[in-house]
Amino acid sequence: MQRYTKIFEEIHANHPLIHHITNSVTVNDCANITLCIGASPVMAHAHEEVADMTACANALVLNIGTLDAYQVESMHIAAKSAERHDIPIILDPVGAGATSYRTKVAQELIDTYHITIIKGNIGEIGTLAGAEAKVRGVDAAFFSGQPDQVAMQLAEAKDSIVVITGVMDIIGDANRVVLVENGAIEMGIISGTGCMASSLIGSCAAVSSDFLAGATTALCAFGIAGEHAAMHAQGPISFKTHLFDALANLKSDVFFKEGKIQEG
Amino acid sequence: MQRYTKIFEEIHANHPLIHHITNSVTVNDCANITLCIGASPVMAHAHEEVADMTACANALVLNIGTLDAYQVESMHIAAKSAERHDIPIILDPVGAGATSYRTKVAQELIDTYHITIIKGNIGEIGTLAGAEAKVRGVDAAFFSGQPDQVAMQLAEAKDSIVVITGVMDIIGDANRVVLVENGAIEMGIISGTGCMASSLIGSCAAVSSDFLAGATTALCAFGIAGEHAAMHAQGPISFKTHLFDALANLKSDVFFKEGKIQEG
Amino acid sequence: MQRYTKIFEEIHANHPLIHHITNSVTVNDCANITLCIGASPVMAHAHEEVADMTACANALVLNIGTLDAYQVESMHIAAKSAERHDIPIILDPVGAGATSYRTKVAQELIDTYHITIIKGNIGEIGTLAGAEAKVRGVDAAFFSGQPDQVAMQLAEAKDSIVVITGVMDIIGDANRVVLVENGAIEMGIISGTGCMASSLIGSCAAVSSDFLAGATTALCAFGIAGEHAAMHAQGPISFKTHLFDALANLKSDVFFKEGKIQEG
Repeated sequence: MQRYTKIFEEIHANHPLIHHITNSVTVNDCANITLCIGASPVMAHAHEEVADMTACANALVLNIGTLDAYQVESMHIAAKSAERHDIPIILDPVGAGATSYRTKVAQELIDTYHITIIKGNIGEIGTLAGAEAKVRGVDAAFFSGQPDQVAMQLAEAKDSIVVITGVMDIIGDANRVVLVENGAIEMGIISGTGCMASSLIGSCAAVSSDFLAGATTALCAFGIAGEHAAMHAQGPISFKTHLFDALANLKSDVFFKEGKIQEG
Repeated sequence: MQRYTKIFEEIHANHPLIHHITNSVTVNDCANITLCIGASPVMAHAHEEVADMTACANALVLNIGTLDAYQVESMHIAAKSAERHDIPIILDPVGAGATSYRTKVAQELIDTYHITIIKGNIGEIGTLAGAEAKVRGVDAAFFSGQPDQVAMQLAEAKDSIVVITGVMDIIGDANRVVLVENGAIEMGIISGTGCMASSLIGSCAAVSSDFLAGATTALCAFGIAGEHAAMHAQGPISFKTHLFDALANLKSDVFFKEGKIQEG
Repeated sequence: MQRYTKIFEEIHANHPLIHHITNSVTVNDCANITLCIGASPVMAHAHEEVADMTACANALVLNIGTLDAYQVESMHIAAKSAERHDIPIILDPVGAGATSYRTKVAQELIDTYHITIIKGNIGEIGTLAGAEAKVRGVDAAFFSGQPDQVAMQLAEAKDSIVVITGVMDIIGDANRVVLVENGAIEMGIISGTGCMASSLIGSCAAVSSDFLAGATTALCAFGIAGEHAAMHAQGPISFKTHLFDALANLKSDVFFKEGKIQEG
C-alpha cells in the first residue's frame, strides 16, 4: 500500500494542475473533486489557447460526454500538445458504443495519440476493444466476455493502462490486472461519478509515472470516500455532498487501513 | 390516484432513457433529478449524433434556456428523429417572451413538430398562446388572462398537453385542466426547478401514452418532494439537496397519501 | 455601514436582473448565489439575442473562465448594448496571464469598453495592470508588487473600480482602497467562489451607482456568509451548501454587527 500512500501524498504536496476538456453535465463536479484530492483543476477548450493551457498542466483529461465537432478538435490540439510536452493523457470515452459518432471519435483519439490511461465502463471499453458490447445512452447495457481479458487486450493493443469501472474496478496493463473492491452502490445512482473518477485518475497520473498504481490510488481513495459517505447519506444528493467531503478528509494512511486492492 | 402510482412504478421498473438538449445552467440538476425518479438521463447535441441518440431514447426534452444557433439546429434534428421514431417530445420554452429570438425559436418548434407536452411559466406559455404576457429574463413578469383558458387554448391549437407551472400547477389538454397543489415556496427561489420539472415530465411521458396523467404524476411527485424537503431545509441550497433526496425516497403509494390533485 | 445595509436592502426590494455571460464550470453556482442575495440571474449568449437580453438587465457580468471565439463575440455584443443602455459591466478576467489568448481577450475588453468593475485575483489583476504577475491555470501563482497600488493604478488607467480578491479583499478606485477582512479559508478550496463574488458584485452594482460601496457590500456579505458556513461545515462541499444558505439567511443589519471593513 506504500506506493498508493505516496502518490496520494504527492498530490497534496504539489497540487498538480489538471487540464480538463470535458462534458457540460458534470464539469463542476470534476472541478470540485479535483480540489478535494488536493490537485488544481482548469478547463479550457478554445482552439486559440488549448495547446498553451495543456502545456502548463501536469495531466490532461479528455471526456467526450457532450462532445461536438469544435470540442473534438480542441481535444486533438490538446492531445498533440500533451504528447509534445510529455504530459499524461486520460481518456474517458463516455457513451462510446451508444452512437457511431462517439465510437468513431474515441477510436480516432486512441489510434492517433498515445493515451496513457483509457477509463470507461464495460460497455465503452468493450466497444473500443472490439468485444461484443452495447451502450445505452451513457450506461453499459450489454457485454459478453471476460472484463479482465478485455482490459489487458486493449491495454496491450494501445500500450495504455485500461480501467474498467464497476462494482469491482479493474485496472490493467498488458500483463496483469489489479482489482479495487472499495466503493458504494450509491456511486452508481448519481450523475458524474465516472467523470469524477477520471479527474482523480488524472490527478494521480500527474504526480507519478507508475500509472497503474496511480489509477489504483484514485479508485481506491474514491471508493473509500464512497463507503464513508454511504454511512451518513439520506439520499443520493446528500450522499454526493458526503462523498466530496469524505474524499477531502481522507488521510494518507487510509490505504493501509481500508484499502481493498487485489494486485494481480 | 391509481394511474399516477402506475406511471411512477413503471419508471422505476424500466429506467427509461431521457435524452436532453438543455441549458448549461441546470444541466447537472436535470441529470440528477432524472436519476432520482428512476429514469436514466443522456445529454447529446452534436449534429453528427443527435438523431441517433434520440432514436434510442424513450423521451426527448428540449429546453431553450441557453440556446444558440448550433443548439437550435440540434433540437430540430432531434425533433425530426423523435417524430420518426414516435418518441414523445417535451418542450420547455425558457425565456420565450423575453427576447424576440427566444420567442421565434420556441414558436418554430411548436409550429414545425408535434410537441407532446409544452411546459413553461405563465409568461412563457402566455407568449406562445398569443396572450398578453411578459417575461423578464427567465421569469414571468406579467400576464393578463385566465391561465387555465390559455393552457387549453394552446393545447387545442397544437394538439399538445400544456403545463403551466406555478404555486398551483396547471396541466391541460384541449378539453380540461388538472390542477396540482403540491409544492413548496422554496422551489421558486432556487435555480433549476422549472428545468427539473421538465425532466420529470419527460420521464413520465417515456413510460405512458397518457401524457396528461404523466405530467400530473411528475408535478405531484416533485411537489410532494418539495414539501418533504421544506421540513428539513435551513436555506435554499440545503433545501435543494433535500429535494433530490426526498424525490428519490418517495414510495409509489405517496400519491394516495399526499397527492393534492384536482381533476377537471 | 449604513450605505452597505442600504445596497443590500435595495437588492432584496427590487430583485435586479443580472445578465451573465460566464463559464460552464460554475454557471449554476452563479445563478444560485445571485438568487441567494435576492437578485435574479439570467444567462444568454446567442448573438441573435444577447444585446436584447442585456438591454433588459440591470447589470452585466462577463467571466472568461471557459471562453471561446463565439462567446468572446457575445461579450462584445453585450458590452456594446450595456454601454448604450447605461448598464454597469463587471468583468472577471479568469485566467488572464495563464495563456496569451486570455490576456488578450481581457485586455481588449477593458480597452474597448468602460468596464465598471474589474475583479480578479492578484495574478489576473497584476497581469492587466502590467505588473509582474503569473497565473497558473486559474490561480494566481506569482506577483511582485503592492496589491493596493496595483488596484489603484489599474482603476485610474481605466476609470474603473478594481477588486482584488484574496484573504483580504481589496476594492479600489483611483484614489483610495477599501479592505474587507471577512471570509473563511474554505472559500479558497472550492471551485467557483471567485465567480460567485462577481455575480454578487453585479447584483450590488445593479442597484447603486456607488460602485465602490457596492463591491464592498458584496464581498463583505459573502465573507460573512463564509464565516457562518465555516462553523457548520464537515468538508468543502458541505461548506458550500452552508455558504449559499448563510448568504440567503443574512439580515441587513449584519454589516454593523459583523462587517470588517477598513475604509481607506
